[in-house]
Amino acid sequence: MASNEERINKFLRRLLQKKSALELAKSLVPEDQPQPARIPGGASISAAAIERRWQLLKASAESRHALLPPGSEADLEQYQNNIENCIGTVTLPVGLAGPLRIKGMFASGDYYIPLATTEAALVASYSRGAQAITESGGCVSILLHEGISRTPAFAFRTLREAGLFAVWCSEQSESLRKVAAQTTRHGELADLGIAIEGNHVYLVLEYTTQDASGQNMVTIATQAICDYIRESSVIKPQYGFVEANLSGDKKATAHSFVTVRGRKVSAEVVLPVKVLETRLHTTARQLERYWKMSAIGAIQSGSIGIQGHFANALAALYIACGQDPACVAESAVGVTRFDVTDSGDLYAAATLPSIMVGTVGGGTGLPTQRACLEILGMNGPGHAPALAELCAALALAGELSIAAALCSNEFTHAHQKLARARKVREEEEHD
Amino acid sequence: MASNEERINKFLRRLLQKKSALELAKSLVPEDQPQPARIPGGASISAAAIERRWQLLKASAESRHALLPPGSEADLEQYQNNIENCIGTVTLPVGLAGPLRIKGMFASGDYYIPLATTEAALVASYSRGAQAITESGGCVSILLHEGISRTPAFAFRTLREAGLFAVWCSEQSESLRKVAAQTTRHGELADLGIAIEGNHVYLVLEYTTQDASGQNMVTIATQAICDYIRESSVIKPQYGFVEANLSGDKKATAHSFVTVRGRKVSAEVVLPVKVLETRLHTTARQLERYWKMSAIGAIQSGSIGIQGHFANALAALYIACGQDPACVAESAVGVTRFDVTDSGDLYAAATLPSIMVGTVGGGTGLPTQRACLEILGMNGPGHAPALAELCAALALAGELSIAAALCSNEFTHAHQKLARARKVREEEEHD
Amino acid sequence: MASNEERINKFLRRLLQKKSALELAKSLVPEDQPQPARIPGGASISAAAIERRWQLLKASAESRHALLPPGSEADLEQYQNNIENCIGTVTLPVGLAGPLRIKGMFASGDYYIPLATTEAALVASYSRGAQAITESGGCVSILLHEGISRTPAFAFRTLREAGLFAVWCSEQSESLRKVAAQTTRHGELADLGIAIEGNHVYLVLEYTTQDASGQNMVTIATQAICDYIRESSVIKPQYGFVEANLSGDKKATAHSFVTVRGRKVSAEVVLPVKVLETRLHTTARQLERYWKMSAIGAIQSGSIGIQGHFANALAALYIACGQDPACVAESAVGVTRFDVTDSGDLYAAATLPSIMVGTVGGGTGLPTQRACLEILGMNGPGHAPALAELCAALALAGELSIAAALCSNEFTHAHQKLARARKVREEEEHD
Amino acid sequence: MASNEERINKFLRRLLQKKSALELAKSLVPEDQPQPARIPGGASISAAAIERRWQLLKASAESRHALLPPGSEADLEQYQNNIENCIGTVTLPVGLAGPLRIKGMFASGDYYIPLATTEAALVASYSRGAQAITESGGCVSILLHEGISRTPAFAFRTLREAGLFAVWCSEQSESLRKVAAQTTRHGELADLGIAIEGNHVYLVLEYTTQDASGQNMVTIATQAICDYIRESSVIKPQYGFVEANLSGDKKATAHSFVTVRGRKVSAEVVLPVKVLETRLHTTARQLERYWKMSAIGAIQSGSIGIQGHFANALAALYIACGQDPACVAESAVGVTRFDVTDSGDLYAAATLPSIMVGTVGGGTGLPTQRACLEILGMNGPGHAPALAELCAALALAGELSIAAALCSNEFTHAHQKLARARKVREEEEHD
Repeated sequence: MASNEERINKFLRRLLQKKSALELAKSLVPEDQPQPARIPGGASISAAAIERRWQLLKASAESRHALLPPGSEADLEQYQNNIENCIGTVTLPVGLAGPLRIKGMFASGDYYIPLATTEAALVASYSRGAQAITESGGCVSILLHEGISRTPAFAFRTLREAGLFAVWCSEQSESLRKVAAQTTRHGELADLGIAIEGNHVYLVLEYTTQDASGQNMVTIATQAICDYIRESSVIKPQYGFVEANLSGDKKATAHSFVTVRGRKVSAEVVLPVKVLETRLHTTARQLERYWKMSAIGAIQSGSIGIQGHFANALAALYIACGQDPACVAESAVGVTRFDVTDSGDLYAAATLPSIMVGTVGGGTGLPTQRACLEILGMNGPGHAPALAELCAALALAGELSIAAALCSNEFTHAHQKLARARKVREEEEHD
Repeated sequence: MASNEERINKFLRRLLQKKSALELAKSLVPEDQPQPARIPGGASISAAAIERRWQLLKASAESRHALLPPGSEADLEQYQNNIENCIGTVTLPVGLAGPLRIKGMFASGDYYIPLATTEAALVASYSRGAQAITESGGCVSILLHEGISRTPAFAFRTLREAGLFAVWCSEQSESLRKVAAQTTRHGELADLGIAIEGNHVYLVLEYTTQDASGQNMVTIATQAICDYIRESSVIKPQYGFVEANLSGDKKATAHSFVTVRGRKVSAEVVLPVKVLETRLHTTARQLERYWKMSAIGAIQSGSIGIQGHFANALAALYIACGQDPACVAESAVGVTRFDVTDSGDLYAAATLPSIMVGTVGGGTGLPTQRACLEILGMNGPGHAPALAELCAALALAGELSIAAALCSNEFTHAHQKLARARKVREEEEHD
Repeated sequence: MASNEERINKFLRRLLQKKSALELAKSLVPEDQPQPARIPGGASISAAAIERRWQLLKASAESRHALLPPGSEADLEQYQNNIENCIGTVTLPVGLAGPLRIKGMFASGDYYIPLATTEAALVASYSRGAQAITESGGCVSILLHEGISRTPAFAFRTLREAGLFAVWCSEQSESLRKVAAQTTRHGELADLGIAIEGNHVYLVLEYTTQDASGQNMVTIATQAICDYIRESSVIKPQYGFVEANLSGDKKATAHSFVTVRGRKVSAEVVLPVKVLETRLHTTARQLERYWKMSAIGAIQSGSIGIQGHFANALAALYIACGQDPACVAESAVGVTRFDVTDSGDLYAAATLPSIMVGTVGGGTGLPTQRACLEILGMNGPGHAPALAELCAALALAGELSIAAALCSNEFTHAHQKLARARKVREEEEHD
Repeated sequence: MASNEERINKFLRRLLQKKSALELAKSLVPEDQPQPARIPGGASISAAAIERRWQLLKASAESRHALLPPGSEADLEQYQNNIENCIGTVTLPVGLAGPLRIKGMFASGDYYIPLATTEAALVASYSRGAQAITESGGCVSILLHEGISRTPAFAFRTLREAGLFAVWCSEQSESLRKVAAQTTRHGELADLGIAIEGNHVYLVLEYTTQDASGQNMVTIATQAICDYIRESSVIKPQYGFVEANLSGDKKATAHSFVTVRGRKVSAEVVLPVKVLETRLHTTARQLERYWKMSAIGAIQSGSIGIQGHFANALAALYIACGQDPACVAESAVGVTRFDVTDSGDLYAAATLPSIMVGTVGGGTGLPTQRACLEILGMNGPGHAPALAELCAALALAGELSIAAALCSNEFTHAHQKLARARKVREEEEHD
């Protein structure tokens, strides 16, 4: 996180153009001001509570109208279990990417995929990649593994105690399974990993959670396990926490990459010379060259895995389909590979070890989000594995599309077109 | 990405409960089916185009109604420059977190922060952290660095040519600056890094982009630089690409963490014993213990930096305020630190080296997103540094709140409450 | 791997002081020169072969005398199975660090540890740390896990075939165990991990290897498994390799850090206030502060784990004791933690997940190396776990000593003393 | 660092075969035993001091004879400035690898390279790779960058103070340069990076150190800078340390990989079809396939960079030539790349960003080590850049040789041959 000398100097010159360092520093000194008003009403979504919240804000009528269209207060009640301190709603446009033909163990068919984004060209780019795949006969996408962990940790007086506790835990695995099972019908404790670091013991409790993304479920089960441990263990921990940040929750980690977080899926396609030429305006040879150069670019950047922009696919799909968009942090990790086949076609694969999706719970039951899942035929129980396979297939489409754009110099062109459109619009607005 | 033997066996047992491996494999064999219909209308957002897109889908009337309320077609035109293949909109509830008192060089005051999420308890948790900060006199948050890079790469026949090209590039830095300047009034080429790997040369072109997040701007400037290089360099590259994946675009990387991507900000607060007790129900000592255990948990997980859940703050704020939520992948990285002060208070700091925000461009001009920025007093030019300082302050609030919940056993409790609420609702629905 | 603009300019100014870039580039152009003489004699260590090798070299008589003292040719035969193209020997001084009291499951007692190094102050520093531990009653050191992997990989036509192959492999685990067992009496296949990436399948074959470090053993066993796979699998790989670089052999990796490579050991000690004061000239509070600052320094550096200088302990011990010093690359990884206890003492722990040691095979049978193992009471079969526990204890001693030196400003002082000694010597030499 | 359930169970079964957990735990309880004898004599290398050290040890006469041949005590005085608590010497055989033809900016010619190792087949493997390079006309190897850092850190009361301190430091850069210059004729402060994390400030002081590896030099210069800061800064740090673990000293880090540590060098060669066939028994196509599979293997392992076994080259060369073998930890990092050229030849490159070598200081002046440097024509001032270029060339030779062995199934064969030789010898010994 260090800047070098010259860059620091440039930054400071910009920063200190108008004010000196001391003047800037002065603005950081705390003043004794009265406490601002608290936000009223908590989880309540009554019209009155909403009204009182708006009175705190100095927003224009126009802004209020945008977030809370007149008469929409009643509609907000549907968000009762999904938000607190509610003042209205934001709206994002949804576009269709596809058709994307997938042959999976769970997802199978031709999909038109709803993506919510405000980034121009994103839907068009994924759509182009999807079409190239579909014209090539579709991609295969298969679920390889599943599991989501909570990682409580406990402190002991000594390493010796830590070791004895670890032995005890490993002997208790069946009991821990039962304790977890009492908290959930859907989740199951699948593995019990143990990491000792000095007098601290971390448990890696890995669960399967069926059709829920499962963070909630595994927290409750783990709490029950922690309670059981505190009661039953002869070697009492001095203290402990139900989660000690080894689980990879909401962040990219080597641990999740090496094992799994949520679901691991690999998708592949072979694009024939003809499709490469007509649809993507490039060749297998050029795409493979790009792959290699960008793979070594990624390695030099110190990324976890090598891939182009899985995050774009996942963020847009997660938002549209009621998934947790903060999980983009952990899901946008994996490996993309391009090969030239003996016949000059392109073999392409995308492997994502940390897809965090569910088709029940979270935001999946909200009207617009449920509608997006329904468009995919994936709302409700029984569809999470299929949704994960679809995520990998969509990510693959995006890797192909962006690489092809970079190979055929269409990458910048798309950006320029957008910039021009925006400029035209701005000029029109100022007319 | 390897599973171990026992986990594989368990997974296979689940997978092969109903079908054999060969039966599953059969479902992956491509069949010769007719190509599905293309999505009609491209970027057009006419009612007719929208209608034709819906005709492709097998969604229920209810879903259509949710995404495209009757009579809303005309409203969709505002998304003309932000989406393609549009079929309607998704809606997310917005809640207020705060008040959050910030003393920054750019952000200064008491903020009520609009967060868009469907994850229950998220707004409440951030709000609690914000209140604790505010009751403690507010946090300081300061911009430490800024810069965003594009990283084109070029292939040569030999390492010798690569070296000569690198020398030439470094001599041309002023020319490259001018070339970039011709493409943008707002962006500026700030640094020209060079990495040679065999006969490949990667340029790390780092720009400042004022109030735009800037991915678009730096792409166009870099394309101009690449064009100039191709024309002017005596040592001609065999081939090259405008971006070769060293920039950290849409992914967590050590390179961005070590340098900067977008804006780097550090925020700090001292929470007095009393606030810790009344607001967070814990002590500085306990929070510091948790920090240490979770820091070593994070290190064992192989994360980039150590932090709890920056992603939650950033995803919810990015969506509300028209930022690119895919950038959560790169932004949700940094360092959280808790210390016990000599007087028994808690010193807490959060440092985020890759905040990707802008207050112009992208989705910032859309009605609901602009409204959220306006609530913060940060819409339009001149506000990007302030928005970045606010991001770090909000992230700090979240780190405090989640750690306190884990220390006081309220973490699971919040989850349990939600689970109960959901269960009650489900039972009511099935009555 | 990118340098920034200003640093590049400085480097180029230095580089181009005497010659222009073109002149330098000229020196890189291949010339058509006759092939140089091959090195004669291969593995032979006859006096004649050695003589012919020396005739190739333009070294002084003094150098030859140093590497090959007159009359020492016959002694070289003992290296028959450890070197090729032998021309003599290098000599490194061995110093004793200790006494180091260890209470382990395998290592137990007061150790005087032979370290081979040419870096002044290294032995003294480890010795000081060891004494501090011993005066505190000794450290506990326990073996936590063991296993070493080879990771062959196979390419298939499709992901579907890759999946079927993976299912087949997991069904064959008992057969693979037997195949491995036929190649070695000491090694055992302990786990069979599988990672699918597109149409490629990586096997993570983890073995236990008793008292050998085991790289040789696991290679031969894995080759037998690969041969069995090629003969028996219905789904034939297109090609494959006995090792595909997922094993962490000779490099620091997150995978080994998350699991194990060789042996994982944790060591701990509590240093009382008095020992800190008299022996280390610092306090627990100051050491804990240093730990925290350096932990976040390490995190910012993007290291795997957090520790100070495990490499120094391991390199010096590995060389003295006939271990493979190239394994320092993978072994010098782990976690150091310092805590202040409630009574103001220092709790310190070092955890090393990748200790690569053996007490048979490799260089362990050579005279001086065997002698060093004998000094530890650890030569020959039955001692590898004890040697691993000793490694962690020694690493812990070094972490304490360097941190204390940094806390009490003795770090630089030691360096200055050395520099002065060297200067005096140089001046004497030039008299 | 977590083991999974099944592996833990297996490990515990092995561990608890003979003793129960409680019995094992008992062996970890400290007993009250008298303190063992201290090692006498410190840095002294008199015969008497050596004798007293040996009296502490329970080693056999044979071991003593090996480490301290009768009459060799006087010779040990040459190690006066390189070791403490000396008891004798260890001896490693040296073999020649080569000839290796290098065209570098600094290294130029046909080299026979002395490698010290006890690992059979290592010298032969590097020699084979070197010959393949030489028969192909030699490799190009060029120095790309140089610099070595020390990273002191300082704690302040607030982020505001930290910021003001950082501004002050950046204004003082010329003064800091002068302060550093007063401590050394050879070193120079080349860059002053600053990283703020909350109220902590890390300085990244990057130096050039000419022909010394330089750790000592930069420590002394940095101490002078820290002293100057403490005296001159208006914003006084609360405390600070001359090194805070951001420098990458003795460990693999992303920071060093992204920038440089010591010297960064890239080496390349084109191997014609014929050399591949006759010397390496494989094809460019097969080597490139292996590269790709192993690159993705390395990525899945979470290594820093992608390479095969740089550590083997560096450890053997560092030991032979008086370099610091603990630096293998940081040096054994980089990127290897293989391409098939249009004419079917193999393009291969190895890039190492962290080569830590010097030709003065450390162990370079010792008799056998100086002799090895002299064989290379690289002893004394003026040769460090050449030695760095040679390191990269040697590493490249090893990458080619091991990959070829894996492609032609000779990898295991070499191991088997060794195993057989050892078995024969063991049988003979037992006759």
